[in-house]
Amino acid sequence: MNSTYKEAASEYARTATVDEEREMDRKTLANAIRALSIDAVEKANSGHPGAPMGMADMAEVLWNDFLRHNPKNPNWANRDRVVLSNGHASMLLYSALHLSGYDLTIDDLKNFRQLHSKTPGHPEYGHTAGVETTTGPLGQGITTAVGMALGEKLLASEFNRDGLSIVDHHTYVLVGDGCLMEGISHEAASLAGTWKLGKLIALYDDNGISIDGEVKGWFSEDVAGRFRSYGWQVIDGVDGHDASAVAAAIAKAKADTEHPTLICCKTVIGFGSPAKAGKESVHGAPLGKDEAAATKAALGWNHDAFVIPDEVYKAWNASVKGAEAEAQWNALFAKYEAAHPDLAVEFKRRGEGRLPANFEEVVKAFLSKEQPAKEATRKTSQRVLGELKAALPEMLGGSADLTHSNLTNWSGMKSVQPGANGGNYLHFGVREFAMAAIMNGLQLHGHYRPFGGTFLVFSDYMRNAMRLSALMKLPVIYVLTHDSIGLGEDGPTHQPVEHVPSLRLIPDLDVWRPANVEETLVAWSEALKRKDGPSAFILSRSNIDFTPVTDLSAVAKGAYVAVEPSRKAEQLIIATGSELPLAIEAAKQKNASGGAVRIVSMPCAERFDRQDAAYRESILNVPYANRYAIEAAHPGLWAKYAPFENIIGIDSFGASAPGELLMKHFGFTVENLLKRLG
Amino acid sequence: MNSTYKEAASEYARTATVDEEREMDRKTLANAIRALSIDAVEKANSGHPGAPMGMADMAEVLWNDFLRHNPKNPNWANRDRVVLSNGHASMLLYSALHLSGYDLTIDDLKNFRQLHSKTPGHPEYGHTAGVETTTGPLGQGITTAVGMALGEKLLASEFNRDGLSIVDHHTYVLVGDGCLMEGISHEAASLAGTWKLGKLIALYDDNGISIDGEVKGWFSEDVAGRFRSYGWQVIDGVDGHDASAVAAAIAKAKADTEHPTLICCKTVIGFGSPAKAGKESVHGAPLGKDEAAATKAALGWNHDAFVIPDEVYKAWNASVKGAEAEAQWNALFAKYEAAHPDLAVEFKRRGEGRLPANFEEVVKAFLSKEQPAKEATRKTSQRVLGELKAALPEMLGGSADLTHSNLTNWSGMKSVQPGANGGNYLHFGVREFAMAAIMNGLQLHGHYRPFGGTFLVFSDYMRNAMRLSALMKLPVIYVLTHDSIGLGEDGPTHQPVEHVPSLRLIPDLDVWRPANVEETLVAWSEALKRKDGPSAFILSRSNIDFTPVTDLSAVAKGAYVAVEPSRKAEQLIIATGSELPLAIEAAKQKNASGGAVRIVSMPCAERFDRQDAAYRESILNVPYANRYAIEAAHPGLWAKYAPFENIIGIDSFGASAPGELLMKHFGFTVENLLKRLG
Repeated sequence: MNSTYKEAASEYARTATVDEEREMDRKTLANAIRALSIDAVEKANSGHPGAPMGMADMAEVLWNDFLRHNPKNPNWANRDRVVLSNGHASMLLYSALHLSGYDLTIDDLKNFRQLHSKTPGHPEYGHTAGVETTTGPLGQGITTAVGMALGEKLLASEFNRDGLSIVDHHTYVLVGDGCLMEGISHEAASLAGTWKLGKLIALYDDNGISIDGEVKGWFSEDVAGRFRSYGWQVIDGVDGHDASAVAAAIAKAKADTEHPTLICCKTVIGFGSPAKAGKESVHGAPLGKDEAAATKAALGWNHDAFVIPDEVYKAWNASVKGAEAEAQWNALFAKYEAAHPDLAVEFKRRGEGRLPANFEEVVKAFLSKEQPAKEATRKTSQRVLGELKAALPEMLGGSADLTHSNLTNWSGMKSVQPGANGGNYLHFGVREFAMAAIMNGLQLHGHYRPFGGTFLVFSDYMRNAMRLSALMKLPVIYVLTHDSIGLGEDGPTHQPVEHVPSLRLIPDLDVWRPANVEETLVAWSEALKRKDGPSAFILSRSNIDFTPVTDLSAVAKGAYVAVEPSRKAEQLIIATGSELPLAIEAAKQKNASGGAVRIVSMPCAERFDRQDAAYRESILNVPYANRYAIEAAHPGLWAKYAPFENIIGIDSFGASAPGELLMKHFGFTVENLLKRLG
Repeated sequence: MNSTYKEAASEYARTATVDEEREMDRKTLANAIRALSIDAVEKANSGHPGAPMGMADMAEVLWNDFLRHNPKNPNWANRDRVVLSNGHASMLLYSALHLSGYDLTIDDLKNFRQLHSKTPGHPEYGHTAGVETTTGPLGQGITTAVGMALGEKLLASEFNRDGLSIVDHHTYVLVGDGCLMEGISHEAASLAGTWKLGKLIALYDDNGISIDGEVKGWFSEDVAGRFRSYGWQVIDGVDGHDASAVAAAIAKAKADTEHPTLICCKTVIGFGSPAKAGKESVHGAPLGKDEAAATKAALGWNHDAFVIPDEVYKAWNASVKGAEAEAQWNALFAKYEAAHPDLAVEFKRRGEGRLPANFEEVVKAFLSKEQPAKEATRKTSQRVLGELKAALPEMLGGSADLTHSNLTNWSGMKSVQPGANGGNYLHFGVREFAMAAIMNGLQLHGHYRPFGGTFLVFSDYMRNAMRLSALMKLPVIYVLTHDSIGLGEDGPTHQPVEHVPSLRLIPDLDVWRPANVEETLVAWSEALKRKDGPSAFILSRSNIDFTPVTDLSAVAKGAYVAVEPSRKAEQLIIATGSELPLAIEAAKQKNASGGAVRIVSMPCAERFDRQDAAYRESILNVPYANRYAIEAAHPGLWAKYAPFENIIGIDSFGASAPGELLMKHFGFTVENLLKRLG
């Protein structure tokens, strides 16, 4: 430990003062986080003690002085949200949740990083009460927090009424320098500034250390200046170990309701460790038995591992205060309910994630209208969402600056303007990754069903946020248009080849590639009905010849028989999207000349795989060797259903040329299919 | 056209003045770009006229006043680089290349966006002389330019000698607001500032319009302030249609050799179009016949489509000036050669991408040392690269802040410090996407063989840049460690499941998942020998029990027989990486009790697929139904080689727990394999 840190620690211990309100030295309260973090990492022999030790004072002030939450009801709609963007500091969050009274016992902390425990290595949403979002992949936490703060602001403008502010809370995010290096932090911060998310408060743990060492070698930017350029209030130069300074900064942040605030807190990573404070070595490994003991001694913490004195528990416990806060809000909501009964019903419905009662009727009504014989599925999707949107005000759309290409817009939509004082359509700008993580935040915040569009090829830019949608089981909807080489002249940089199968590889993501009106409609309705995971729609830029389907329930099973030969099927072709008409035409020709070809349309392979064996067998009961597949994408995954050599796909990059010509050039033709069938 | 733009255009036409040097009104020179762009987009009936029309003046000044290049030798090592980051403005680049004398004819321009033409929708490296990098996916162009400027700076510090600056050129990048919204622009600009890339000059086409309309609705940040926070020189408020102002700004940019420069040029998208200038409608669609004519009339351009007057060609042509510039450099290099013959030889060798003559010996020598019985392949990789690096000074390593985890470092490495005045190891910070695009830029600039590391799961963050490595056929090397759920306690956010197969789906990317010393060594040596595409190494965090291999040439084929039973094989298991020892043990047990199981190690499926049919058959000649595969990743792609139900993989997210326990929990055991074999 160099002298600076040594001095800092001893000064810290010396200046312990009693906080009158909670009759407890607040440094002791912060040390409880440090001790639990040290102990849990030590016991797991794995984890990240440095950041929790460095951020303990910031967290203690936030939780004990500012946070409006009720540990006994982590789902209270109007709670403040806290996001730990640097998720590796998970023991900070687990400690604060445990100490403040959430359903997280000391035994849970002892099981840190063990199978089936409530305390996994990084915080996981849905796994642990009080964890608002899954973090770990850097930069996404702060972006998801932007989504939550946006959700709060839009929801407030939609539901609050004269003196009845039922939506009125803050979103806090703890963020490290790793998050701020990531590109997505730029996208998120820029949008937060434009949207004037005044109730978003970020506490930056500026400890000067990342895994490679002292960040000055690769992170020399003026962070404060950068955030000011985004229109944030920046409170710079705060001593992150000085509770009064942190408290003053948060108070100042709350006072500015026009701008999001970044509070730059200078801290020491691994604060308190005589040998490791301020060093990279304390970031991602246990302190070791001796150093753990030395650290506790230096901090004046004289308790056995995992032992927290009762008075510390008492001072931290937020259950009473939290119950009071929620009771106050319940009283407010009761007034609201009396004054605006319909709005209150709607607020509750949306909060519970229930679709409107007439949802199925609206879906069916769509098909009662005359439908075109051919259309680009992006256009079909737009018509569907226009109808559904009219019945589902919770739908909140957007695009990463491709609105008129993705057709994620609808007639009567209202763009969210700078300031974000209402609206139902989000212009994300050219920021795919932020779009996805913000959608996650909106979904987590509740009351909205976000969907967002970009070109399929640029799903690459937001892939890890799509993965987090899936990992968190969030029913976010991705509208991905320009689905294949068929998009034409924009060329290989814009033509997806590997993207459809690579999205199918993400666990729990439903990937729909519809081929007609009914499949597009079912994709939307099933995605909206889904409660346990995201959906992605893969939509064509160009017209597809439609073959109408009568049985929507079969479509919802992910695959169905589109053409059945007059006698027992001997051959079978699986097709999706724009290749379905080719397969149908090939079957028509082959069957007219004595063949017996079945066509299976498989708009969503993941759903098909979830059906029971009997259904799957009823669709696929043709010998494996006689099955074929066609899709304008990499063929690899179809080998599950048909021999690899029977698959017509594309495993090279595309080219710049008119789309129809490219489809022929790369072999997506009826002739080629017939040749394969023999 | 609103009055502002109308006034601007008429003012522009009115103030046409003769440039004495080239005896030509330079607005006419710029209008040549506009006319060609209008004509080509019109003929293709597809494309983006707005940006070329808006940036024509900037480009004219850059090309005609500043650029040191030789159109007759686009590979001249010391040429200035120009990157068009907003690649949809491709007709700007094609026009400038055509006009200045590159091998790009007027017929090539007439074939804009047609199959096999030299003028695809977005610029493609390797396809068109003078195109320095493939652009289109926004934000990557400027980042690749950062890589080029870094390459220039490092190479200069490595090779330049007293008065003999053989490496001394600028990198120019044209960038739109879409690029600056993307997160990667933050990563790139931050690093460029830290590295003090004083010869990087970005011209920002600030036209206030993106696809969704006026950017003020979603892009309200202070761009100048933001770039100043990164340590850039910012020249703000330049009229992008005033050639003198642009020229003065570029001159000022060149004068500051300490800081990269951003020149903010206010422009009008679709400049000159009476009806569409300043509007989104001119961004991505042809003007239409009438508006094209009206635009040319407004600009005073009185020539038929694709007709450029001789005097315009003459004023633009850079062949003579370029040949002189290269001749001067050749003379300088001759002096250098005389003074430093060894360095000159080395400079040429590296410029031509030739490996050292003793490369194969160095590779073989590695195996003559004693090798451990077990090791994490990330550690093996580190040992290999330490040896190879000693013989290959062109290897330039780095990591996205995971050096001590990726083990991309070696003894004796020299970190590139802020200022980038030398070194051979890059600390990218937590910036995966920029790392990949910068590696592309380093490779394109030449003389270096970049490799960079991160956790496999975070390949998601840089996936589209990996795709561009492949599309450009750049032999960049990705070192991706922590390869599966086997990494353990960090949990599902850090555990790759879908990543190995999803990388295998990217065309022309070789994905290696080695299982022992020899496979790791061959992965490195083959990746370095490769000239036509990138390689990714998938490496384990934990120890693998090694089975040595004697025939390295078999390993280089991507798959080989690791265990052959004493009688004709009846069953076959394909395995990779950490699962190979499980397969070998299962075969041992099964074969000891009368079985006949062959084990195929397949470290690189893509290479195996490129072998001739005879080799593939010699490896796989066991009936399909009796083949099995095991890999701790999503099983989907293995169905090509073995029935889906015979594959042991993982198609759900992982969990936080010790790695060995997880491997058992998810079924990666000898027992499970034996059960499958029956």
